[in-house]
Amino acid sequence: MTTELHRTVSTHPESVVISIDAMGGDSGVGAIVDGIGLSADKNPDIRFIVHGDSAKINALLNKKPELARRVDVRHADKVISMDEKPARALRGGKGSSMWNALESVEKGEATVAVSCGNTGALMAIAMLRLRKLPGVNRPAIAVLWPSRNPSGHNVMLDMGADIKADAEDLLQYAIMGSSYARNGFGLDRPRVGLLNIGTEEHKGRPELQDAAKLCDAAQQDGDFEYIGFVEGSDLPSDKVDIIVTDGFTGNVALKASEGTAKLVGEFLKDAFTHTPLAKLAAIFAMTSLKRLANRIDPRRVNGGVFLGLNGTVIKSHGSADAIGVSAAIKLAFTLAENGFSEKLAARVASGAPASKNTTASKQNEA
Amino acid sequence: MTTELHRTVSTHPESVVISIDAMGGDSGVGAIVDGIGLSADKNPDIRFIVHGDSAKINALLNKKPELARRVDVRHADKVISMDEKPARALRGGKGSSMWNALESVEKGEATVAVSCGNTGALMAIAMLRLRKLPGVNRPAIAVLWPSRNPSGHNVMLDMGADIKADAEDLLQYAIMGSSYARNGFGLDRPRVGLLNIGTEEHKGRPELQDAAKLCDAAQQDGDFEYIGFVEGSDLPSDKVDIIVTDGFTGNVALKASEGTAKLVGEFLKDAFTHTPLAKLAAIFAMTSLKRLANRIDPRRVNGGVFLGLNGTVIKSHGSADAIGVSAAIKLAFTLAENGFSEKLAARVASGAPASKNTTASKQNEA
Repeated sequence: MTTELHRTVSTHPESVVISIDAMGGDSGVGAIVDGIGLSADKNPDIRFIVHGDSAKINALLNKKPELARRVDVRHADKVISMDEKPARALRGGKGSSMWNALESVEKGEATVAVSCGNTGALMAIAMLRLRKLPGVNRPAIAVLWPSRNPSGHNVMLDMGADIKADAEDLLQYAIMGSSYARNGFGLDRPRVGLLNIGTEEHKGRPELQDAAKLCDAAQQDGDFEYIGFVEGSDLPSDKVDIIVTDGFTGNVALKASEGTAKLVGEFLKDAFTHTPLAKLAAIFAMTSLKRLANRIDPRRVNGGVFLGLNGTVIKSHGSADAIGVSAAIKLAFTLAENGFSEKLAARVASGAPASKNTTASKQNEA
Repeated sequence: MTTELHRTVSTHPESVVISIDAMGGDSGVGAIVDGIGLSADKNPDIRFIVHGDSAKINALLNKKPELARRVDVRHADKVISMDEKPARALRGGKGSSMWNALESVEKGEATVAVSCGNTGALMAIAMLRLRKLPGVNRPAIAVLWPSRNPSGHNVMLDMGADIKADAEDLLQYAIMGSSYARNGFGLDRPRVGLLNIGTEEHKGRPELQDAAKLCDAAQQDGDFEYIGFVEGSDLPSDKVDIIVTDGFTGNVALKASEGTAKLVGEFLKDAFTHTPLAKLAAIFAMTSLKRLANRIDPRRVNGGVFLGLNGTVIKSHGSADAIGVSAAIKLAFTLAENGFSEKLAARVASGAPASKNTTASKQNEA
């Protein structure tokens, strides 16, 4: 069955093929297959290579014959657990669903890989299999940050691929983040801000001062607008599209904000269960509260993207359900369709501070 | 009048005297005098030296004769604006209400200074006038972070007094934060966590690895419990009392979380004004929503404390109203009554990694 399905996928070269690690995440293989099904229903141009326990996957696909025709199931014996250390995953991860999902991108069978699994392990294996783009010092993880922009989000990077970044790394994050925003979200000339503890020019660490000068000089050729320093309070603002920071700061800011949103949510729930009258009010307010929950629902803007590798990798939330998985696949499809990997490589090549822009390299950029 | 009131204050040596910068903040001198009034009503053992525009202050006090008897008004011509750069405030700030408020602590007329003004200027002038405690390399700003702990908050430092911190600075923050929690909030043996991007021992920057070892070794003599690394998502948790980080990371985390809470609040407001039915629901839900607003109201846990100086300085929110000012004064009173400044000095002296603990220095600690 595997071979037959594989042939089906291969004979549709006009389709975008997405490679899926079906064993990552906390919600189980069922949520992932359901997410694939949601995406397939909406988008006839997408096909899948799905890696994992083939007995389980096929049992689920047997109930969805339409979907099964567009899926190539590849059996993998091993699963990398959510708490596996990256170093151990590197040593023992060969043959796992995650490893094989990345290998499908490496071999060119698929354009983008999607996993809900262990972020550290995914980055470590992706670095090994896909390798860094020529000219990239530190790859980065970009996430979508809820904001007041019309799209409902900003892009922020790095969220923890590396624990530090010097001025040239920060410039590269600006270039890579801009290319991502152009190809993933259709922003022509994204506005880039450097995250700092104040907006005045003299503020912050020395590498931020230097990065500010580099971004200012690179904005013309890089097709982005450098707007200067932004603060933590600006992350949800509509004055910036791409927020650039080192992976330590980005990771702390992300988790602190998620923690705050969760705390406010708990307080809200408490407030509406405190007294019988409050419970009655909750019934009247149900629709309003649902609308709020939808707006801050991380499943709807699900997907961290690894930037700076030879190939695109999307890390979906570990707790993603079918809706979350489907959102990550939609992003994967958009990036694949726009030829993002190639465009990003051209951008990095031409944007590296030491190199020159040539007309030839400019032609392939977006 | 000034002299007479000053005499009144001086002749009550059993009272705690708090020095107030009446001209800082966005809400004006009226909010500050009202805040002083709220505190005075609740607490008969507190007196005030109030610095600023004496005509304005006396006009407000004339309506509160009971309060006026407990206030010593000191005229200051100058005001340091909210956007004044710290370096400029240092050069030209002499004779301002902020400068004079700190000088009252330096001279020993008051135990704690409270200002709603410009944080950077306040820290710069406080460093100059009060000077660092012997043995302190970097002073820190500690704030209260909303949490699931019974008190409703955790303590986090540094929030931006300095942009970096090495391992020994982080240890000192742990020692100073613990002393603050013992004297300000009655925690016998506060639990200290180091903020990192993962809880595993091998995670994060080298200075965090080193700080972990120092904190582990110092917890016994320092009367705190070192619980290891915590992540951004743990900031509102009930597993930690003191969260230690460098000022850059702390400042970004604080502002990002405030930004998130504000965004969720806006979304909530949108949700309840979206349709006529939603507006009706909002009326029913009013009490519940008020309860929520109270729990996340920054005015009720108002006050960042500068630690590591010869004297205690409390920075209240710039936007604090009377309730916020009163909360900051309550904290100032508690710390003054417990002799926090002296106890902190003894702690720092005995906790410095190079020094030895002596029985004599231990006696003065808490």
